[in-house]
Amino acid sequence: MIVPVEFKNIVDRYKVIFFDSFGVIKNYKGLVPGMKNTFDYLEENQKEYYIVTNDASRSPQQLAESFVKLGLDMITADKIISSGMLAKEYLELKVPDGIVAYMGTDDSAHYIENAGLRTLPVKAIDDSNINEVNALVFMDDEGFNWFRDLNKVVNLLRKRNIPAIVANTDFAYPLNMHDVAIAVGALANMIEHVVGKKFIHFGKPDSQMFMFAYDLVRAKYPISKKEILMVGDTLHTDILGGNKFGLDTVLVFSGNTQPEDAETSITSTGIVPTYICETAVI
Amino acid sequence: MIVPVEFKNIVDRYKVIFFDSFGVIKNYKGLVPGMKNTFDYLEENQKEYYIVTNDASRSPQQLAESFVKLGLDMITADKIISSGMLAKEYLELKVPDGIVAYMGTDDSAHYIENAGLRTLPVKAIDDSNINEVNALVFMDDEGFNWFRDLNKVVNLLRKRNIPAIVANTDFAYPLNMHDVAIAVGALANMIEHVVGKKFIHFGKPDSQMFMFAYDLVRAKYPISKKEILMVGDTLHTDILGGNKFGLDTVLVFSGNTQPEDAETSITSTGIVPTYICETAVI
Amino acid sequence: MIVPVEFKNIVDRYKVIFFDSFGVIKNYKGLVPGMKNTFDYLEENQKEYYIVTNDASRSPQQLAESFVKLGLDMITADKIISSGMLAKEYLELKVPDGIVAYMGTDDSAHYIENAGLRTLPVKAIDDSNINEVNALVFMDDEGFNWFRDLNKVVNLLRKRNIPAIVANTDFAYPLNMHDVAIAVGALANMIEHVVGKKFIHFGKPDSQMFMFAYDLVRAKYPISKKEILMVGDTLHTDILGGNKFGLDTVLVFSGNTQPEDAETSITSTGIVPTYICETAVI
Amino acid sequence: MIVPVEFKNIVDRYKVIFFDSFGVIKNYKGLVPGMKNTFDYLEENQKEYYIVTNDASRSPQQLAESFVKLGLDMITADKIISSGMLAKEYLELKVPDGIVAYMGTDDSAHYIENAGLRTLPVKAIDDSNINEVNALVFMDDEGFNWFRDLNKVVNLLRKRNIPAIVANTDFAYPLNMHDVAIAVGALANMIEHVVGKKFIHFGKPDSQMFMFAYDLVRAKYPISKKEILMVGDTLHTDILGGNKFGLDTVLVFSGNTQPEDAETSITSTGIVPTYICETAVI
Repeated sequence: MIVPVEFKNIVDRYKVIFFDSFGVIKNYKGLVPGMKNTFDYLEENQKEYYIVTNDASRSPQQLAESFVKLGLDMITADKIISSGMLAKEYLELKVPDGIVAYMGTDDSAHYIENAGLRTLPVKAIDDSNINEVNALVFMDDEGFNWFRDLNKVVNLLRKRNIPAIVANTDFAYPLNMHDVAIAVGALANMIEHVVGKKFIHFGKPDSQMFMFAYDLVRAKYPISKKEILMVGDTLHTDILGGNKFGLDTVLVFSGNTQPEDAETSITSTGIVPTYICETAVI
Repeated sequence: MIVPVEFKNIVDRYKVIFFDSFGVIKNYKGLVPGMKNTFDYLEENQKEYYIVTNDASRSPQQLAESFVKLGLDMITADKIISSGMLAKEYLELKVPDGIVAYMGTDDSAHYIENAGLRTLPVKAIDDSNINEVNALVFMDDEGFNWFRDLNKVVNLLRKRNIPAIVANTDFAYPLNMHDVAIAVGALANMIEHVVGKKFIHFGKPDSQMFMFAYDLVRAKYPISKKEILMVGDTLHTDILGGNKFGLDTVLVFSGNTQPEDAETSITSTGIVPTYICETAVI
Repeated sequence: MIVPVEFKNIVDRYKVIFFDSFGVIKNYKGLVPGMKNTFDYLEENQKEYYIVTNDASRSPQQLAESFVKLGLDMITADKIISSGMLAKEYLELKVPDGIVAYMGTDDSAHYIENAGLRTLPVKAIDDSNINEVNALVFMDDEGFNWFRDLNKVVNLLRKRNIPAIVANTDFAYPLNMHDVAIAVGALANMIEHVVGKKFIHFGKPDSQMFMFAYDLVRAKYPISKKEILMVGDTLHTDILGGNKFGLDTVLVFSGNTQPEDAETSITSTGIVPTYICETAVI
Repeated sequence: MIVPVEFKNIVDRYKVIFFDSFGVIKNYKGLVPGMKNTFDYLEENQKEYYIVTNDASRSPQQLAESFVKLGLDMITADKIISSGMLAKEYLELKVPDGIVAYMGTDDSAHYIENAGLRTLPVKAIDDSNINEVNALVFMDDEGFNWFRDLNKVVNLLRKRNIPAIVANTDFAYPLNMHDVAIAVGALANMIEHVVGKKFIHFGKPDSQMFMFAYDLVRAKYPISKKEILMVGDTLHTDILGGNKFGLDTVLVFSGNTQPEDAETSITSTGIVPTYICETAVI
């Protein structure tokens, strides 16, 4: 039986902390009680921290506002790294012109537009503009008609040999204590199988998420991977990805993983966190 | 380069012919021109034939009516084996009572009701009846709201440990010369990954489809598998399944496979038909 | 918590019993103590029984001899259905002439020769005979040099577009209380990925295994699937396959599945046996 | 039909060039004729270049020596980034002490020892040291007995919940014009399926390979990803990985991809290189 340790004791050994958002800082009930203490402590002790999230449904600004509403006004947009930012960087580097078609809400598309690209929801693609579509991005599971637009996307990808970018690799997310919802990663994965092409996936456990965060820190001062701690609630994304990137990792029980299942899950998957804590509360 | 042979020369060597429906007898344009000759010839020469199809959206009676409308009035319901019939047999054998929830049109559910089971579309499942739901069947990609009902199905399967049956393993089907549509097999496969459970899949290339047809023939007279020919347009379903079941197979070019791609596809997949014909027209 | 029921009470409700071999009748320690009683009881009560096994390493005669050595002299060769028999049937039906190359011991190849085909171990394939090789069969994980012959098989399949048959779909089998061994199914699966071709797999959970056994019974007298019980120790092969074929199923704890893990495994896989018993001992 | 462009015209637009090794600089016949000109040109024009390779069988020093033997004495060890270097970094960061077990030649293990860790070939693991084994690395397909040591590795991973690192994700590599060999990536993938655990894979197309190279360049001077070109012969590793990391990419025909198949491969996979050239020769 695993005996969790105190999060504070662990945090004291590192200079920089990366946090997953959903399941660590907040969950379907709202703020994980006590997490404000954690961020106050980090601020007081001048420890750098970043939120590393697979949520591409909103811009870093909008995500930061949602933390402010929970009372965490120290979490500003510059502390947030989302898989949507990687999608945006990809489009800036690799798609010089034309239209970027998207699946998701208008909000999710909004900050991709900052890349200087013209975005269009999939529903607005027609014969007059299909030949200008130079990329497709899966941003969010909401904001479109699944039947109409998933079918439309299949045929778009059969007609235009363009990159398809998946800005959130998650397959599901919790809605409340009882229910989950299908995430856009599962929809994109289905389309990938139907059309038989390789999509470009951004999000944990992929290293590129961690690299993006690591680069933000290194831009300020020199730091070794040994001085960074990754905190997450999910073995297959946060812990696997953190481990592979060379970071020490903490598994917490405030989200996807239940204390009674942790040992079985760790043994059966072979994904071993450096530490285990009840929560990330200090 | 592959030189196709005459279908008539091949048919003459067999006693029983199994035909795939879509892509062989008909396609999005309607009847494949000349196919009436084929069935007239089979009738005249007292050769038995069966239609073996992954179409679970309608009952054998309704499928037979659709052939009659195309002028093929010899194709009666007793000559049709659909993956929906296997789903029905499974429910009769393994689900003694309760409700069978379904994804699909009312038509697709109708003949499952003949199994004496109470069916209910997924949208009608609620707290009052969820505990009576003893099975879930994926029948058709139409007849329900994808966003609402696919999410509902995920949560149904998390709450009730019941068998999920997929009555059509196809991932897509052609709508017209330019477009395809996502088939219910792709939707079911996505849900299977999201919930992490094993579903029961019926449909070619699985052997159970061929056994069902083989049993119908054997119920009339003794026959060896060597006397049966399977005709199909798709390597991964018709040809792979027919080969594995021990039948000789014909690949035709009236559907999914184009003549110019056949050789590459056969070499790269290792799925080799016994013969290749332009069409199944005599 | 699952409360197992008495095997005898269940058996009394069925006319025919299908048994998995390893993990049900015997395990690495030898005969499961008490299993002789079970077969005595079945004989006394004139219940038909068959052994349905993924073991293709030996002929039914050799497998029967191994049961006799354990004191079960009622288990004769005609009561044994192995995945190797399906491979043999496939070769008889689909490979009219030429050489069948094999991976496995000479024993495993021996009864394939009864199909009238010339067999050759992969190590003996060379420039003088490669063009006569018309099929490849994976029979057993022993009897060849893995490094030399697995590499040889990859290049054989790149040069000759022939069917590759996998006569045992298992990935591993237990050697003793502590250790398992890689089974030929895992080796074949690796080669399938390396060459990118579709192989023909025989073995539970595939329906063809159950059909073969069902046909043997039906050749003697009429029987419904409802009168047959499948007994196995593995959810993914015995129980999933039995369920899909329409049989009632019993999970026993004398092999792969431990009592303390059963509930978690059943819930997480969605593979639900009709009954659960400690062992198949009466 | 794709018309390849001149490699020189493309190179002139970039400051830094990343090259795949096998299939671009050399192949089974030795040096790709004319490649010395390319490196002379890069040196003369003060363009930075790096070799980014999935070859973990030798240290960068040994790989550099192999280039010198081909007449490319400008390719020094500091210009080589191999997936083995990522494995080494992982071990340095995440495995503080104990034994690292390895699959591969002694050469492949040698430079991992520089991480200060004690290495041991899998064959030398026994009851006296198994509890000190804190990691397993798949380095090379040679240097061990496949039957004995692959089975041994399966049981090691069932007994010790340690990270398994795959230092080469390739499934096969060419031996000569006619034959390929199974690479260690395929062996590791098989073991991963047999034991059901998640391994840590390093190698293209994974972003971490490109990050490692990008970091080496950035350590010298500021550079944008737009100024870097990736040259490779394989869509699924070099081109997919380069694209995802945000680099422009060139597909060349001196290795895995044949000119006559390029268009079909690009269309069917959806992996689109920025440019296509016959070879990387200037």
